[in-house]
Amino acid sequence: MTAKNAFYAQSGGVTAVINASACGVIETARRHPDQIAQVYAGRNGIIGALTEDLIDTSQESDAAIAALRHTPSGAFGSCRYKLKGLEANRREYERLIEVFKAHNIGYFFYNGGGDSADTCYKVSQLSETLGYPVQAIHVPKTVDNDLPITDNCPGFGSVAKYIATSTLEASFDVRSMAKTSTKIFVIEVMGRHAGWIAAAGALVGDQGIPVLTLFPEIEFDQAAFLAAVEAKMAQHGYCTIVVSEGCHWPDGRFLAEQGTRDAFGHAQLGGAAPVVANMIKQALGHKFHWAVADYLQRAARHLASKSDVDQAYALGQAAVELAVAGHNSVMPTVVRKSSTPYMWEVGHAPLSQVANVEKFMPRSFISEDGYGITDACREYLYPLIQGEDYPPFENGMPKYVTLTNAPVVRKLADFKL
Amino acid sequence: MTAKNAFYAQSGGVTAVINASACGVIETARRHPDQIAQVYAGRNGIIGALTEDLIDTSQESDAAIAALRHTPSGAFGSCRYKLKGLEANRREYERLIEVFKAHNIGYFFYNGGGDSADTCYKVSQLSETLGYPVQAIHVPKTVDNDLPITDNCPGFGSVAKYIATSTLEASFDVRSMAKTSTKIFVIEVMGRHAGWIAAAGALVGDQGIPVLTLFPEIEFDQAAFLAAVEAKMAQHGYCTIVVSEGCHWPDGRFLAEQGTRDAFGHAQLGGAAPVVANMIKQALGHKFHWAVADYLQRAARHLASKSDVDQAYALGQAAVELAVAGHNSVMPTVVRKSSTPYMWEVGHAPLSQVANVEKFMPRSFISEDGYGITDACREYLYPLIQGEDYPPFENGMPKYVTLTNAPVVRKLADFKL
Repeated sequence: MTAKNAFYAQSGGVTAVINASACGVIETARRHPDQIAQVYAGRNGIIGALTEDLIDTSQESDAAIAALRHTPSGAFGSCRYKLKGLEANRREYERLIEVFKAHNIGYFFYNGGGDSADTCYKVSQLSETLGYPVQAIHVPKTVDNDLPITDNCPGFGSVAKYIATSTLEASFDVRSMAKTSTKIFVIEVMGRHAGWIAAAGALVGDQGIPVLTLFPEIEFDQAAFLAAVEAKMAQHGYCTIVVSEGCHWPDGRFLAEQGTRDAFGHAQLGGAAPVVANMIKQALGHKFHWAVADYLQRAARHLASKSDVDQAYALGQAAVELAVAGHNSVMPTVVRKSSTPYMWEVGHAPLSQVANVEKFMPRSFISEDGYGITDACREYLYPLIQGEDYPPFENGMPKYVTLTNAPVVRKLADFKL
Repeated sequence: MTAKNAFYAQSGGVTAVINASACGVIETARRHPDQIAQVYAGRNGIIGALTEDLIDTSQESDAAIAALRHTPSGAFGSCRYKLKGLEANRREYERLIEVFKAHNIGYFFYNGGGDSADTCYKVSQLSETLGYPVQAIHVPKTVDNDLPITDNCPGFGSVAKYIATSTLEASFDVRSMAKTSTKIFVIEVMGRHAGWIAAAGALVGDQGIPVLTLFPEIEFDQAAFLAAVEAKMAQHGYCTIVVSEGCHWPDGRFLAEQGTRDAFGHAQLGGAAPVVANMIKQALGHKFHWAVADYLQRAARHLASKSDVDQAYALGQAAVELAVAGHNSVMPTVVRKSSTPYMWEVGHAPLSQVANVEKFMPRSFISEDGYGITDACREYLYPLIQGEDYPPFENGMPKYVTLTNAPVVRKLADFKL
């Protein structure tokens, strides 16, 4: 068997640990030179493949690749670009094959979330649809934790740890201030349709913090919410509110809606926290502070979950092992064997069952009143935030790697996206 | 000499390390039983003294007091309450003396910022003005770093480290996304009148990040700013903006003004980041994300600077040592001996020179164009963010202490604030 080259790319919103998956892919590929010659990374995701903008990862030292494990964000650039179906845009698929042929690419590793799984699935069909043999493996990544089948998604555990910790710290702060000053603290977290990240904020309730959580899964009821705030205030004198960016009114409008949309046509959100804070101020008069963590939460490699880093790496590694074992159109998954003690192993699922399926929080994970989490949710969440995995620091700041990202020499004519 | 009791209280906005100062005060007092019998903490700052709401810290174990060193926020509660002058409110001073007498209090340790230094200074005058002998020592604390004489204020170094790290991480994120999605990231940081925290965000420029910083010391010039953004975009394709909550227009209006005021009459701020982000979107069309770190930054004990923790503890310790050596009306200070390598020692300054004096960033710390920092500023900042001092973690989250805060038995009639 002659070695083929591999294509690896990062897609969608990046995370604190997507580079740990890249590290797993590249380090594992380097251990299989008989089957994988080079790993070419797409500069800015699938766009790098379409425009023949490939990065030669063999130019990076072993030390630089190892440092990806502790470096947040997407080292090769990511993109928000979803391939249309073959009928709607045959031209792009033919271009992919042209680039793959020109660079002897036989493996396609795509590291992303739900939209990216769909792209990866389409590429995995190229053998059948257009006769080009390629093995496409999807490496799961999403802070939203909304991919199906896998117990959890790399990227989520670290955000969960960051939000749980930050919410705890800020709650201690407002508790200190509540006598004469701030009594309400509102933190807005990511999670457009699924409340997994918001649920992580609710964990502070286990440490005695009065906390109310606003999930995207529960329609916002202003009167009931304000009554719940007053009940917490009466008992504790302060209250923390964790609001998901996806929290919405019964008519579907997001609390945070800004009126702009991203490349996938999703509404661009931000600003639910000030909406909630001002609502409380107007109705109940309490002084507030609010925070919008935004990118800070998904980039916070300094507070990554060790479970998460380990799994991100393991799924990158497994993707390559699946490929060299002959698999196509699959995604490695985390399979939970036990919550206490936490034990997991790597499995895999067919992409046909992954693409375009969104996993929501089960209703059984949300407390009956809609503002908290249940023991089943706690049992699910705690293992995912276990362990610390600090990056090295230099001169007071984390020492993250920026790769040289040397281009592969182009062989083809330009292609217009 | 008969031992007297000590009063300790926390005032103003709390920090990641104000409890480390409390730890320094209490542990050191416990080593001086001949002079200091008990340390009574004020519940919610000076209000605890006025209302005779005292906490008996002797009820806390050595382990609990030691855990204060790694616990953010104010363990005894803080307050925003500034004593008026003696002439304007003699009643409060007489009440303080009544409480001090009732509980044999001869030492007053007040842990706070500029407004609190003023309160502490007034208390330190009680021997002269009302004939009650008390030694008042101010323990500096403020994330704003705006107290005079001391080289820096405990609390600032940890915020600086958090903002530098978070801005770096989020900048890596936007760099990954810039090709097809977010190109502008705006982070809003604290600092009402002084740009010290914003300057810490500017440190990411040393790691190749295109960053523009908006200081409260520089009047906001929209046209010049937008031109600076475009220049960064042309060169790098993305740009990070660090905006101080205190950034203001030439007429003095804050970009973030919400129209509400706090107990000291200061305008309550928040929301400069969305203002700046939307301004860029409207003028230049770039997709943006923004974050408002708010309490997250000052509560982030998980990423404290070791320099800062050490100094917070040392100044608490020094306050007690100054008191037992007979000092009154002073504040222990950090005296920098050398920046490279970083060497410092503890000094002290008279409160008359501290109270109501605000230290701004020197203009020489801000680059000529107003959007960056100078080498002098870098030399000042880097030592303050050196070293990590992680708290212990348990079950995935930091293990912070909540004290029992047992009350001292009251001896006096109620007092109405």
